[in-house]
This record gives sequence, structure tokens and C-alpha cells, in this order.
Amino acid sequence: MVKKYKKDDATSYALGATLTVELIKRRPESVRAVYVSPRSDIAAVPEAARAHGIPVIESEKAINVLSPKGNCFAIGEFEKFTSPLSAERDHIVLVNPSDSGNLGTIMRAAAAFDAELAVIRPCADPFDPKTVRASMGAAFCINFECFDSFEQYISRFGDRAIVPFMLNGRPFESAEFDEGKRYSLVFGNEATGLPESYAAYDAVRIAQSDKVDSLNLSVAAAIALHRLYAAKRR
Amino acid sequence: MVKKYKKDDATSYALGATLTVELIKRRPESVRAVYVSPRSDIAAVPEAARAHGIPVIESEKAINVLSPKGNCFAIGEFEKFTSPLSAERDHIVLVNPSDSGNLGTIMRAAAAFDAELAVIRPCADPFDPKTVRASMGAAFCINFECFDSFEQYISRFGDRAIVPFMLNGRPFESAEFDEGKRYSLVFGNEATGLPESYAAYDAVRIAQSDKVDSLNLSVAAAIALHRLYAAKRR
Repeated sequence: MVKKYKKDDATSYALGATLTVELIKRRPESVRAVYVSPRSDIAAVPEAARAHGIPVIESEKAINVLSPKGNCFAIGEFEKFTSPLSAERDHIVLVNPSDSGNLGTIMRAAAAFDAELAVIRPCADPFDPKTVRASMGAAFCINFECFDSFEQYISRFGDRAIVPFMLNGRPFESAEFDEGKRYSLVFGNEATGLPESYAAYDAVRIAQSDKVDSLNLSVAAAIALHRLYAAKRR
Repeated sequence: MVKKYKKDDATSYALGATLTVELIKRRPESVRAVYVSPRSDIAAVPEAARAHGIPVIESEKAINVLSPKGNCFAIGEFEKFTSPLSAERDHIVLVNPSDSGNLGTIMRAAAAFDAELAVIRPCADPFDPKTVRASMGAAFCINFECFDSFEQYISRFGDRAIVPFMLNGRPFESAEFDEGKRYSLVFGNEATGLPESYAAYDAVRIAQSDKVDSLNLSVAAAIALHRLYAAKRR
């Protein structure tokens, strides 16, 4: 029987019919079962599940346990998976992000702008159903990986341009991006940003008025990812 | 005594000490009272309030009614205000946004990138405490206005460049922005986008991979606002 999600569980959940269909489409091998509400007549979830031999369980109770708000009609239960980063791709690196909504929104932006995601612990849980939901399914189609420290990340991916975003960096808008190079765009925690030590790299800053102290993390990350993506396709 | 926020109320609330200090700093004339928790020793809120002759009420109960999650120690109660748009400024226009978190995040981006915000009804409530909180105080420092229809907006602000964002638009990345012109960047609802009728204007599209159907609304709006801001300051 299903139970409320906990960080150390071996499985997690895709909440909602659209997300569950996306899960089945992208990672059928990871799906253990789908739960559908008897109140629902959405055929897409059971059809997709049966096409992959995934058990379909009709259970209002399972849905209520996992999504108490009452506007969810299907849930996909999946085994957590690994999706190692590639040295050939651009990365966005989040150092200690604390908000699962931001983490999921940045997964969606990374998918939109052809990047992979590294997350430095401690961090919001990339498999939390809230993260997965905010990703709109991008969690199932981009590569992402957690690291115990930035040093651990660098030991595997040091051979590329490291670009930390800091309030005292040089203007991001005039930074050049070379199509032949690989980039890692690095962002700090929502409240505290990156530690001063990251200024050892060539840090940049997104232009902004003095009316705000900073940008929302997912907004800043998306602006950076979009500019890199657009520059490389020019 | 305070009660749970409703859309038709004449007042709303800033939840949290930092936000309440921002409210008092930006709009002291709108603040009716501040509520502080007896558990808190944060001096900034009562100090700022007293400097403006605003009543300070110590009340755990008021805090529990308005912010049941228990991590809030101060609340500012304020009268809803009007902040009319200027014809001299760039605008972001949201047609029927439905999510208060997105609306607040876009207020924050508009403040960061020197734009004002128009919202076309039906829409998420710009004074909802959730919107105000997501705005991180930008609700108190940018001008924003609601309109009953896009036509009503255009009847006042038709004399400028109208730029709708649509999936079949031309590339946004090669669109030129003229420092002497005023722009209105127009975005549709989170789920449905803009109706086809907006293609009568010169629509643009943000470049993105085919891995996602669309971008998060606040992410797309921020990418657009940032590029306009950066282009005008070049």
C-alpha cells in the first residue's frame, strides 16, 4: 500500500494524470504501479500503463494519502533512478538550493534550454513529489545528479568554464559564450547566495535595478540558461 | 480583530517580519496596524511601526489566524491601494494569470527590470497575501493595475509597441528594442497561453528545445523583461 513520501524512500510519486503519462512515456522501466481514482474517467493513464505492462490500481484511498487536496485523479509510483551528467553538455549547478518548487522549475528550464543539472548537498530533494510536479515532467527527461560538495563536482567536471553568479560579479550581459566550450552556470542558496570563495572563478552578475535585493533563484537561473542556449545557437 | 483574507476585503496582509518592514518603509500611509508574536524578539517591526505612528498589537492569535504554519512572527495589515501605470514606462501585461505565486514572482522581476505590471481579469488576486509574499515586497514598490479586458488596457496604452509572446511567433532573440520606444510585453494564461487573436500584433517566441511544451510563466516573463532592460541600457 502507498504511504506519504519520505526523503529516504526508494520510490517517489508523480502526482496528477498529465505528469503520470509523462513518467510512463519517459521512464516506463522505473514505474512500479499507477493509482487511479474511481471518480475519474481519464483513459490516458490506464492505457499508457497497460501498454507497458504496468499494474493499474483503482484506489481513492491511495490518492487521498498522497495528494490530500482532492484535485488529483492519477498517481504514478516510480523507483528513484540515476541519470549521470555528461561532460559534453552544459550544466547548471545549484549550491544548497532549499526550495523544492525552485528546484523543479529549474529542471523545467534546464530541459527547455538543453542543460543538465548538478545539485550540491545539503539541498532540496530532487525526487520530492513537489519538485517532480514543479518540473512538469522534466525530472524524467533531463540528467541530474547530487554531489556531496562542489569539490566533488569539480573533480569530475573541472575541465570547463565555471561561471558563478554573484552580486559583485562583472556584467553577465556582456559575457561571451563560445559555441565550442562547455559551461557550468553556478548559483547559490535562495537566501544566502554563493560564499565569497566562488569569486576565485570569473563571477558574473545579472543586471537589475536597485528596487530589489536579488532575483528569485529560478528566475535568475532561467535567464542565464536562456542566454547561454541562445548564444550557442546564433 | 483580524480574519482570514478574502478577495473582496478592503485590507490585506504582509506575512512575515521582513515583508512587514518593507511594507512600512514603502507604503506607511497604507498600514493600519502590525501584529507581532509575543514569542518573537524581533525589534525591527515595532520600531519601524512606531516611527510612523502605526499601532503595534501583540497577538499570537492574530498570527495563527493569518499564517497557520507557525513560522511567522509579524504581520502588517494594510489598506489596498491603487498605483496607476505610467505611459512613460515599459509594461508587462499578464492576460488571465491564474497562479498567485507566479503573479508575485513576476512583480519581483518587474521591479528588478524597471517595468510596470498590467493584469487582465479574470486573474489571480494581486493583493492576495500569497502574491504579496512571492513578490518579496515588490507589490509595494512597483505600479500595477487590473483591467477588465485587453481592449480597456489598449484604450489607454495603445500608443506603444505591443509584443505578444506566442508559440508560433518569430524569434524573440533577434527582436530589436529601441531605447526611445515604450514596450508592452504580453503573456497569456499558464495553461492556455494567448488566444490566436493576439497574432494580429507582431508576436515573438522564446527559443526552447522540444523537450518541454512551454516555459513556466514567471520564467518566460523574467527572460523577456531582462532582455528588454539589458537592451535599453546597452
